[in-house]
Amino acid sequence: MKEVLVVGAAAIDTIETPFGRVDKVLGGSATYAALASSIFTKTKIVAPIGEDFPKEHLDLLSLKGIDVEGLEKNGKTFRWEGYYEFDMNEAKTLRTELNNLITFTGKLPESYNESEYVFLANIDPKIQLNVIKQLKRPHFIAMDTMNFWIEHQKQDVMEAIKNVNMVVLNDGEARMLFETASLIKAAKECLRLGPQSVIIKKGEHGALLFTHDKHFSAPGYPLEMVKDPTGCGDSFGGALVGYVALTDNPHEKNIRKGIVYGSSVASFTAEQFGVNRLKDLTTEEIEKRFHEFREMQEF
Amino acid sequence: MKEVLVVGAAAIDTIETPFGRVDKVLGGSATYAALASSIFTKTKIVAPIGEDFPKEHLDLLSLKGIDVEGLEKNGKTFRWEGYYEFDMNEAKTLRTELNNLITFTGKLPESYNESEYVFLANIDPKIQLNVIKQLKRPHFIAMDTMNFWIEHQKQDVMEAIKNVNMVVLNDGEARMLFETASLIKAAKECLRLGPQSVIIKKGEHGALLFTHDKHFSAPGYPLEMVKDPTGCGDSFGGALVGYVALTDNPHEKNIRKGIVYGSSVASFTAEQFGVNRLKDLTTEEIEKRFHEFREMQEF
Repeated sequence: MKEVLVVGAAAIDTIETPFGRVDKVLGGSATYAALASSIFTKTKIVAPIGEDFPKEHLDLLSLKGIDVEGLEKNGKTFRWEGYYEFDMNEAKTLRTELNNLITFTGKLPESYNESEYVFLANIDPKIQLNVIKQLKRPHFIAMDTMNFWIEHQKQDVMEAIKNVNMVVLNDGEARMLFETASLIKAAKECLRLGPQSVIIKKGEHGALLFTHDKHFSAPGYPLEMVKDPTGCGDSFGGALVGYVALTDNPHEKNIRKGIVYGSSVASFTAEQFGVNRLKDLTTEEIEKRFHEFREMQEF
Repeated sequence: MKEVLVVGAAAIDTIETPFGRVDKVLGGSATYAALASSIFTKTKIVAPIGEDFPKEHLDLLSLKGIDVEGLEKNGKTFRWEGYYEFDMNEAKTLRTELNNLITFTGKLPESYNESEYVFLANIDPKIQLNVIKQLKRPHFIAMDTMNFWIEHQKQDVMEAIKNVNMVVLNDGEARMLFETASLIKAAKECLRLGPQSVIIKKGEHGALLFTHDKHFSAPGYPLEMVKDPTGCGDSFGGALVGYVALTDNPHEKNIRKGIVYGSSVASFTAEQFGVNRLKDLTTEEIEKRFHEFREMQEF
């Protein structure tokens, strides 16, 4: 069992979906990922927070056993306001205040340089690269990204990909980054850059894993009601890396299981607004859903 | 082992995709479905053909052991001309000549009334209903349809659904028919009308099965190159019903396996233009891919 270091954004989100609205709640890629990872293993979080970051959020992270020493306090917290329309597939941004994300470089506390399992959640790829440089003996580095960075800093994204073991992308991002309609071609292009595995998240359609010689397909969990998809991808990635660190063996077999655990945790995340469902999620609930995934595929 | 009766359209197709073009080749929902079904069990086909229907097409069907007594010869064969753009997800129609499809009623040869396993491939739902009325002791009736009928004859489609055991739809059709973005809600609405199972085809994302108390998810086969998606849905349905008839037991377990056989056959169909790949497809090739599906899902 190894610890996980999660690097990304912490945020204060305002979210509206067809099922309701929440104002100024805890959000951010690193937050969701760390909460999900912490279900499986001891987790450290690195992200910029502001002087305005509510103490209750810090308390929640600590309560989950997350090491918050790497939450760099400075200025004002990154804020995001967005909504989802009826089909829930795409977040529409109403307002973004980058605030202290602008000056954040991803400098790690000294002791974090020894981290072996690292999840670079969605954030500026330059920061992801800076984190990679500080790691003294990385064993398994996974990264996520988003369309914004692919559009504006494609070369940095590519450079980061060359330096990680696993890439986690959603289908639209994979198609955009490798300029092909075929997810298989995109995944193969991505593997050619260096990573040993590429995971393509397809929302309700599940997730795919590509390695140099294997292909794995995990189904989507049939949720009748998605209340809020915010953070599903981040909690998927966090749970996946958390599980792999727990096994301390990034073998393809463990990655397959990690993907199903990630899908399970992400499906819970979508059931409530923000991080609400992650607050009280039990390992029993996750195990139960893990087995439902198995039954859903049996033939 | 039981025989399958397939009812639908026979056609002469002209198809263009980014990978080439074929002119005036064998097509039609019943043709693809019967060819796929005949891999698993003895199959009868009922569809209108014209005086212009080439003898070589009849010879091909006969060579595959398909009973062609129900091919009603009259006037001119239905013709379809269409193309696919780069993403290959949607057929764009350039020209349709309905010809003898207009007068076709689906009258079965007397001896076919005893059919127990029936696949109503995509065709006017009034014809599907007329076929159902003629069946004396149906054991398992499955139906497909398409957006055109949902748009123009929704009540007939609904009436047909009430009279079958299994409905096979693609995701867009399911959403359109039940006016919801959620495939799960659409499937539940569909089950409420009477069928014991609903199958939703999702193209590259695989297929879902919903029964009253179970859910099954089959992955898509990771084809790097789709040459021509025409007839994939029809051959999926034909293979599925062919396999279920082979087992003579429409238990959910056999339907799950049938879906994987259907996915396997459909993935081969897409590898070549028109019915070309179905002409020489062997059971060994299908079994091999069936096992690849199993490996793709293991965790």
